[in-house]
Amino acid sequence: MKFGVAGSGSWATALVKILTDNGHKVNWCLRNDTTIGFIKQRHHNPKHLTAAILNTQSLHLTTDLASVADKSDVLILATPSAYIGTTLAELPPTAFKNKKILSAIKGILPEANMLVNEYLQQHFEVPLQNYFAVLGPCHAEEVAAEKLSYLTFSGIDESMALKIAEHFKSPFINTVVNTDILGVQYASVLKNIYALGAGIAHGLDYGDNFQSVYIANSADEMAGFLRKLGAEHIVVGEHTDTASPEKKYANYSASVYLGDLLVTCYSLHSRNRTFGNMIGKGYSVQATQLELRMVAEGYNASKCIYSINKSVGAEMPIATTIYRMLWEGLSPAKGFEEIEAFLI
Amino acid sequence: MKFGVAGSGSWATALVKILTDNGHKVNWCLRNDTTIGFIKQRHHNPKHLTAAILNTQSLHLTTDLASVADKSDVLILATPSAYIGTTLAELPPTAFKNKKILSAIKGILPEANMLVNEYLQQHFEVPLQNYFAVLGPCHAEEVAAEKLSYLTFSGIDESMALKIAEHFKSPFINTVVNTDILGVQYASVLKNIYALGAGIAHGLDYGDNFQSVYIANSADEMAGFLRKLGAEHIVVGEHTDTASPEKKYANYSASVYLGDLLVTCYSLHSRNRTFGNMIGKGYSVQATQLELRMVAEGYNASKCIYSINKSVGAEMPIATTIYRMLWEGLSPAKGFEEIEAFLI
Repeated sequence: MKFGVAGSGSWATALVKILTDNGHKVNWCLRNDTTIGFIKQRHHNPKHLTAAILNTQSLHLTTDLASVADKSDVLILATPSAYIGTTLAELPPTAFKNKKILSAIKGILPEANMLVNEYLQQHFEVPLQNYFAVLGPCHAEEVAAEKLSYLTFSGIDESMALKIAEHFKSPFINTVVNTDILGVQYASVLKNIYALGAGIAHGLDYGDNFQSVYIANSADEMAGFLRKLGAEHIVVGEHTDTASPEKKYANYSASVYLGDLLVTCYSLHSRNRTFGNMIGKGYSVQATQLELRMVAEGYNASKCIYSINKSVGAEMPIATTIYRMLWEGLSPAKGFEEIEAFLI
Repeated sequence: MKFGVAGSGSWATALVKILTDNGHKVNWCLRNDTTIGFIKQRHHNPKHLTAAILNTQSLHLTTDLASVADKSDVLILATPSAYIGTTLAELPPTAFKNKKILSAIKGILPEANMLVNEYLQQHFEVPLQNYFAVLGPCHAEEVAAEKLSYLTFSGIDESMALKIAEHFKSPFINTVVNTDILGVQYASVLKNIYALGAGIAHGLDYGDNFQSVYIANSADEMAGFLRKLGAEHIVVGEHTDTASPEKKYANYSASVYLGDLLVTCYSLHSRNRTFGNMIGKGYSVQATQLELRMVAEGYNASKCIYSINKSVGAEMPIATTIYRMLWEGLSPAKGFEEIEAFLI
């Protein structure tokens, strides 16, 4: 199984490290020749996850994505969701024919309001059968430090997901397989919204007692959205509800759902939390963006989910209120006063 | 509604503060006259939660528990679970006749392996109808600091639980009512075991990625135990499982379940976590007890739950492995290697 990787950020670098540490050869498409030269000479990424030492013997580095796609059985997409369109623009519509795509993208395509699989289906006719996602609670920094982490490989072709996962198993990576391909992607979008909200609460000076109530209720709201989605889209998850075997939901306490929510909400280094913290302290969205020189994923995600939930119809008072704080001028203090009333 | 309080620790002090801040008179039974004199003069507890300023005008302080019980409509028990027997020993078996008991005790009676309601039923013929628990994710320190916290009042007499809860509602206390009186108590026992385990994992140098997986899976294991218990004891919770309306479970993502687990596992100040951390670093249970001058609740709890689960029959690989590390000489490193394999 030949792997290609598109993306040059921390998460792409972490996945390259995992595969090459396991002895697999990887075709890695990077943005420019300077980066390629640096990695060849210094054996680590110049800007991102610099602590991860890369076995360059196993790497073929290039800026030509078409050739990487062509040579790969499995192409890993690990760019920010907002750039997926420009990254793939140079490719012909047939570039992914008979290829497996493994998306490592956490997030939804803004504007288009699409999951990556929907985008790939539309532009490259990638069938869902060939599409997989690798997600889970996994700060790239801990992969560099070789701390044990769990990655979940999801896809409706469970046996192929298992085969792909096998290549990532290592002394510091445990793998889990599930088939809830839409659910895991939405969970990875939702957790950013809730983490941004946790940051706002922190900025408003709420304490640990409140945060635990807020995060627990967020977990419940997320599971409610996913159940609703599962019921409508007939997504078959790993976990059979024994009480009603005709409905199969994923186990929403698994690491790829609850675990990822926890690591994102509780991490002080999370960009979403930092972004939210400034909002809670009274900065405007615009000022926060300027100050931090970035937009947190949860910001766009809140708008995407707000729109998507109009058709899903889940009860999402927390996510909706966060959307209104970020996009409709609701003051953070007033917003959290409203959220307080929903929490149990 | 007249309130009495038994207990002189942080949690008792926090509850006294909440009630007296709300303008209620409280009969408070303390351990000795020195403490009483100090509180009267200095308006705070000399040893515990010293930051909480108490309105002594609303307090009647005494060392006579029988008179406190006699004068109260609702007697709040807020002693450590291990001391409940000695605390109540002086009382006649009829002391609680027609009284409501509100247990603020987090934990199970060691040796007896009993919840507080079972003990009170056996020794004082307190019917479950008259028994309530106040629990939730609530560090007493944040009550002193008047940070918004959520308390859950549980009892099978839901309307009385609501009435009691009303007295605690304040600008910094929100209240939730549920009827899962056994479940909330077991949750408060279980979370200490998992928090102790989180401490062991930290001591073994696992990182944040792993902790989130471990805690998410612990939440799932806890819910599994409670569902099993609920199914057997026909405890009717707040939350109806729409898929199987004949079985009513509580919503295990609510603050009193998942929220309390989170605040306990993630708090660096938790005694259970600190205790576990030393075990993970290689100290024996005995050395840890000596060094910290205390036993963490999770230590005894792991044995109690191990024993109780023989009849409940839930799948509890995490709690069982922690029990074996604490009581049967399984090495922490080996134990967590086993736990790793169960996590999803």
